[in-house]
Amino acid sequence: MAIEGKNEQNIGRIRLGMVGGGKDAFIGGVHRIASRIDDKYELVAGALSSTPEKAQQSGRALGLADDRIYDSFKDMAIREARLKNGIEAVAIVTPNHVHFTAAREFLKRGIHVICDKPLTSTLPDAKKLVKAAEDSDALFILTHNYTGYPLIRQAREMVASGDLGEIRLVQVEYPQDWLTEPMENEGAKQAVWRTDPERSGAGGCIGDIGTHAFNLASFVTGLELEALSADLQSFVPGRQLDDNAHVMMRFQGGARGMLWSSQVAPGNENALRLRVYGSKGGIEWAQENPNQMWFTSFGQPKQLLTRNGAGATAGNLSASRIPPGHPEGYLEGFANIYAEAARAIEAKRLGQSLPDDLLYPTVQDGLIGVQFIDACVRSSRRDAAWVKLG
Amino acid sequence: MAIEGKNEQNIGRIRLGMVGGGKDAFIGGVHRIASRIDDKYELVAGALSSTPEKAQQSGRALGLADDRIYDSFKDMAIREARLKNGIEAVAIVTPNHVHFTAAREFLKRGIHVICDKPLTSTLPDAKKLVKAAEDSDALFILTHNYTGYPLIRQAREMVASGDLGEIRLVQVEYPQDWLTEPMENEGAKQAVWRTDPERSGAGGCIGDIGTHAFNLASFVTGLELEALSADLQSFVPGRQLDDNAHVMMRFQGGARGMLWSSQVAPGNENALRLRVYGSKGGIEWAQENPNQMWFTSFGQPKQLLTRNGAGATAGNLSASRIPPGHPEGYLEGFANIYAEAARAIEAKRLGQSLPDDLLYPTVQDGLIGVQFIDACVRSSRRDAAWVKLG
Amino acid sequence: MAIEGKNEQNIGRIRLGMVGGGKDAFIGGVHRIASRIDDKYELVAGALSSTPEKAQQSGRALGLADDRIYDSFKDMAIREARLKNGIEAVAIVTPNHVHFTAAREFLKRGIHVICDKPLTSTLPDAKKLVKAAEDSDALFILTHNYTGYPLIRQAREMVASGDLGEIRLVQVEYPQDWLTEPMENEGAKQAVWRTDPERSGAGGCIGDIGTHAFNLASFVTGLELEALSADLQSFVPGRQLDDNAHVMMRFQGGARGMLWSSQVAPGNENALRLRVYGSKGGIEWAQENPNQMWFTSFGQPKQLLTRNGAGATAGNLSASRIPPGHPEGYLEGFANIYAEAARAIEAKRLGQSLPDDLLYPTVQDGLIGVQFIDACVRSSRRDAAWVKLG
Amino acid sequence: MAIEGKNEQNIGRIRLGMVGGGKDAFIGGVHRIASRIDDKYELVAGALSSTPEKAQQSGRALGLADDRIYDSFKDMAIREARLKNGIEAVAIVTPNHVHFTAAREFLKRGIHVICDKPLTSTLPDAKKLVKAAEDSDALFILTHNYTGYPLIRQAREMVASGDLGEIRLVQVEYPQDWLTEPMENEGAKQAVWRTDPERSGAGGCIGDIGTHAFNLASFVTGLELEALSADLQSFVPGRQLDDNAHVMMRFQGGARGMLWSSQVAPGNENALRLRVYGSKGGIEWAQENPNQMWFTSFGQPKQLLTRNGAGATAGNLSASRIPPGHPEGYLEGFANIYAEAARAIEAKRLGQSLPDDLLYPTVQDGLIGVQFIDACVRSSRRDAAWVKLG
Repeated sequence: MAIEGKNEQNIGRIRLGMVGGGKDAFIGGVHRIASRIDDKYELVAGALSSTPEKAQQSGRALGLADDRIYDSFKDMAIREARLKNGIEAVAIVTPNHVHFTAAREFLKRGIHVICDKPLTSTLPDAKKLVKAAEDSDALFILTHNYTGYPLIRQAREMVASGDLGEIRLVQVEYPQDWLTEPMENEGAKQAVWRTDPERSGAGGCIGDIGTHAFNLASFVTGLELEALSADLQSFVPGRQLDDNAHVMMRFQGGARGMLWSSQVAPGNENALRLRVYGSKGGIEWAQENPNQMWFTSFGQPKQLLTRNGAGATAGNLSASRIPPGHPEGYLEGFANIYAEAARAIEAKRLGQSLPDDLLYPTVQDGLIGVQFIDACVRSSRRDAAWVKLG
Repeated sequence: MAIEGKNEQNIGRIRLGMVGGGKDAFIGGVHRIASRIDDKYELVAGALSSTPEKAQQSGRALGLADDRIYDSFKDMAIREARLKNGIEAVAIVTPNHVHFTAAREFLKRGIHVICDKPLTSTLPDAKKLVKAAEDSDALFILTHNYTGYPLIRQAREMVASGDLGEIRLVQVEYPQDWLTEPMENEGAKQAVWRTDPERSGAGGCIGDIGTHAFNLASFVTGLELEALSADLQSFVPGRQLDDNAHVMMRFQGGARGMLWSSQVAPGNENALRLRVYGSKGGIEWAQENPNQMWFTSFGQPKQLLTRNGAGATAGNLSASRIPPGHPEGYLEGFANIYAEAARAIEAKRLGQSLPDDLLYPTVQDGLIGVQFIDACVRSSRRDAAWVKLG
Repeated sequence: MAIEGKNEQNIGRIRLGMVGGGKDAFIGGVHRIASRIDDKYELVAGALSSTPEKAQQSGRALGLADDRIYDSFKDMAIREARLKNGIEAVAIVTPNHVHFTAAREFLKRGIHVICDKPLTSTLPDAKKLVKAAEDSDALFILTHNYTGYPLIRQAREMVASGDLGEIRLVQVEYPQDWLTEPMENEGAKQAVWRTDPERSGAGGCIGDIGTHAFNLASFVTGLELEALSADLQSFVPGRQLDDNAHVMMRFQGGARGMLWSSQVAPGNENALRLRVYGSKGGIEWAQENPNQMWFTSFGQPKQLLTRNGAGATAGNLSASRIPPGHPEGYLEGFANIYAEAARAIEAKRLGQSLPDDLLYPTVQDGLIGVQFIDACVRSSRRDAAWVKLG
Repeated sequence: MAIEGKNEQNIGRIRLGMVGGGKDAFIGGVHRIASRIDDKYELVAGALSSTPEKAQQSGRALGLADDRIYDSFKDMAIREARLKNGIEAVAIVTPNHVHFTAAREFLKRGIHVICDKPLTSTLPDAKKLVKAAEDSDALFILTHNYTGYPLIRQAREMVASGDLGEIRLVQVEYPQDWLTEPMENEGAKQAVWRTDPERSGAGGCIGDIGTHAFNLASFVTGLELEALSADLQSFVPGRQLDDNAHVMMRFQGGARGMLWSSQVAPGNENALRLRVYGSKGGIEWAQENPNQMWFTSFGQPKQLLTRNGAGATAGNLSASRIPPGHPEGYLEGFANIYAEAARAIEAKRLGQSLPDDLLYPTVQDGLIGVQFIDACVRSSRRDAAWVKLG
């Protein structure tokens, strides 16, 4: 276990900009903390709000230099690309519908993009963004942050090494309760845009958190989806997007799965939970206590694996900062995505080839995520018919 | 809280016979213990095995009089019906395919039937059995035993009293792992008949435990199914019946649900778990630690309700024998079905009308269970099309 | 795993009497259920209350024959000893101060005694009772029932087989909360006698449940106490006996321990918990979910052992009735004491020597328990000085 | 809930130095991450090791300017105090025996000290350090970091507001297992100094983690110790300091408590756990899953309180960064101490009086901690006699 400073030669922090993440935002602050934890980034510029006044206030509160506070992401992209010490990477933390246009501006100027999920609010945008990323020399990192938890790394490694045998079953769920009542009608900012098709896209709950659950299951198992059958609901009267989703899945090779995501399940905060079962064993993990994972080798007693603890695999160890029993949480998992992105960006900066052990989600993972949302919506509109991604 | 002796006047134990439940059986012993716990029954006769030698051995081991040990259930029904002190009730604990023919023999002679689930191995048999029960003056009790847990009684009462608001979601699952490998090929008795369509019926896992899960959800919520979409799998090569089932459900009135049952999920013993969410609150309960149940009133802290503990409802209290914190388990829950059956049988014996608070599962519940299995099989054969019960 | 009928030849139930356990009592009903679960006993006589009217009512409610309902335990002892089919064993379930005089009457007439704990209310009585038991040919079984849990049997076996290495530490606790307020002042029967030195003895909480905790630790570890230091408190104003006890322990051979028992710890129902640590491993078990036990071999992942599950030892298996994942509880653990007593009583009846694998607590264990209570009281009066048992 | 930027006017980061925390150290990295999370500090100088070569390497790896890397803390104190932009605060993260001499150097030059626990390795040093802090205008912050957890803040507020009634009982424990075997003999750096009286002081386990447990209990309850009785052990042959401690406590006003700390309890990572019970209610909290806390109001169902969740108090809310259900951990709790220190340091910088709601542990708390260790050692040497702090 290493404490920060993973490279012996400190080559200076990565200069980071941010789009979105001003006052009243949620995920922007998470990205900033995540970027600081391992001391690999320095936030130096921002277009933090589409409201100029708020952009200015927020920028000053964060200690940005006056001339690095922008009122539009396009202005920021253009000017920073010209500066001698302009930003090398940008974090895009806006509502979904802005991801595509913002990301494109930076990609085409060779600025690396670290973008929140889902990739875009529409499938055509997602495909264009894949193209934009392919056409750019810059990197594209998607913050499906739950993949950064150390025990999720261990789960992936255990599946890959055959500890579970042939994978048969995936049970994944992500229930929340915060939208049990129509709080979007009361102006709660986080609720308003997430329930608005213009800003979220065609998926509500399935896009906001169902896509996290699907990504996590894919990351751990390596399985590719063959078809899905989805039944989306909107329980709260007047709500335009789904607030609950039931999905059955068939994977290539024969494995099957179920996915449940909900924002109307009272008693659930962020109860993301993954269970994977194979011919030889099973694992069970829950995000709210991410420092523990159950593993059962069929016929043997259940084992409680811990972050950085006895039986830890390489990926668990390398993604941990502190000893077992001292809990790491959401921010540290998020920071692991940033730390891996930093390793890639530093390699680029030094003209080296990329490390071959990078696991951060990419623009391709983002496309699959948007395809998943799209497929769920299509299936649900056809009475839960089986549909393929595409 | 009362300890046994719920009636002040002891009117003598109910004379009980048993069909099935000989050596090497599992559920017969459970029924016998359940019948003894509250001292309301006395086992006096048995046709304990279809193998005469085993029937004799088993009967003697249980201390039955020689002339009350039968080689066939038909002989037992005929003779006991004629005896002055013949059995008043019979427990049928055979493999599924015997339930119908055995139950019919006793019902038509006015002997009350306590039958294990599922009701029958085929839907036509189930319908005939409903008719036979309707035509008989005898009672029919189906041992969907999980409904006997005190906190399940509380859950039902809380739903009925509106503590959860309008029910929106039902998540129910029953994973096991004991059939992860093809143990039926090694002659394990419990595995052999449960994976044999001749004896189990068209459903494997869905019939053995999926039907328990469905019954439990129905018991607690009172919801009626509108349609289901099922994807059944048989993961173990050569297995004739499903060993895993994924089901999406739509209930009348708009609630939705998911049901998962599996016998190939390593790390799960009998992990039956029910979660119900409504517009005002949610409950979560797991069979392996049945003395606790979570309740959340939306916006309030989660509460841990306990068997016979603070906040217990009438049904929780009356189904409990000992103080909170001293765990009651599976056998006590099972005994609650027997205790309620005894109250009904005693009323019959005394020529009284039945108590109006009986909650034990009936032949109608059994029919619905067989319809559920049948619908899952039909749906799965049609690629998980939505089908109705019937 | 066997279901009941552990002997192939059924030799008839043991004829059981009961002293105490009438209406409003708690533990009497527990003993009766425990005696019935494995069908080894039949309750045929009782002196169920010191109030004749209550004794008669209670006897009739339990279906005893009129001439087997007694108004005093002495009458019962005398008459039953003379009957051809008189009782072979008696369960004594009165308040503590009656144990000695009642047990003596039966022992001296050769009637086996199954007695609730603690053995007696005073140390001199305990010593006399040991003598009385030694002078009798009858058996004496003390229902320190927690020793009957299957995983406690496994814990004992694992310690004995060296899985934990040399035992260093014992942490045992038994908190409750039901006496947080002075409910004895409101006439609650269970509270009144338990807080009365005349009926309970010199120990309150330490005698009622601390002695259970100490017995459990001794049973599992096999350690003998060298000295203890106790700090007893009575937090509720006006209460005559301790309602909370802190004890430090030194065992022969160098192990150390702590014991906490309390009846004033809000949020605790019957939270008996045992943790034992040695040079090679540790175990952790909690009574409220007794079907699970943690085991850690130092340096390896924690394992969750289950009742009758993977990794079960002989004692776990033989004390289990049903498969893993279907919880057994307090009553089944209690029944295991009765089942072992039955094996001994049956051997006596048949003139055989006692089985050599009996583990039920004896009169000697009872003496140690009373010595433990006495030592705690003595130590506490001397400002928690170290004292020895004796 | 606010994300960082708690002051609207960003006034520039606090310039921080560090003593200790070079390669192979553990707690130094924790302090650095904690200082970065809320972006209130910038590490600009360090005397990171007593080995010059390691000090240089470590400083460069952390990106310090060459002339701000020092080979001795005294050199650093002298030079930094003279620099126009010298450090304003220093984090001292060395083994215990260095704390006093290092802290004194900075305090006397007006540089704020953030020091790891325990305060010093001897009681005389602790008293001198209190004097040095009192004589200085600089602040002294002791990183008893567990007090920074949001739910611990809530626990303190709930006790203070009377939700638990009059406090009667404190049960606190901190078991670990990493010293179960004599790893200090194999040269493990963390083990070597912690088991060495020269560097740790007279307490081993009791000083390293027992003092954390005691501090936490004091922080939450506000109780002051009247006397303690301690039984310290050293189970591993050859070990010079205690590796296990049993302590009974009597608090002023009549409350009582037990404290257990251990480094030889296999299966425990950092299982710090606090339980507090009063006349009206109880709370239970465990560090390994710090985002949950149980609260029971006597006679009501147990409640599960969560970080930043339903029922959160002001202190819980203000110490939280992200929504409930996304776990915060050890580093965030630690960062809360740094954030509070920053508020105090910023006030000092601006010539303002200190905020009146600061809760970080002070040099006085540190003195009490060293007195506690000293009292435990004294008591244990006198066979667990009751002793007072002092």
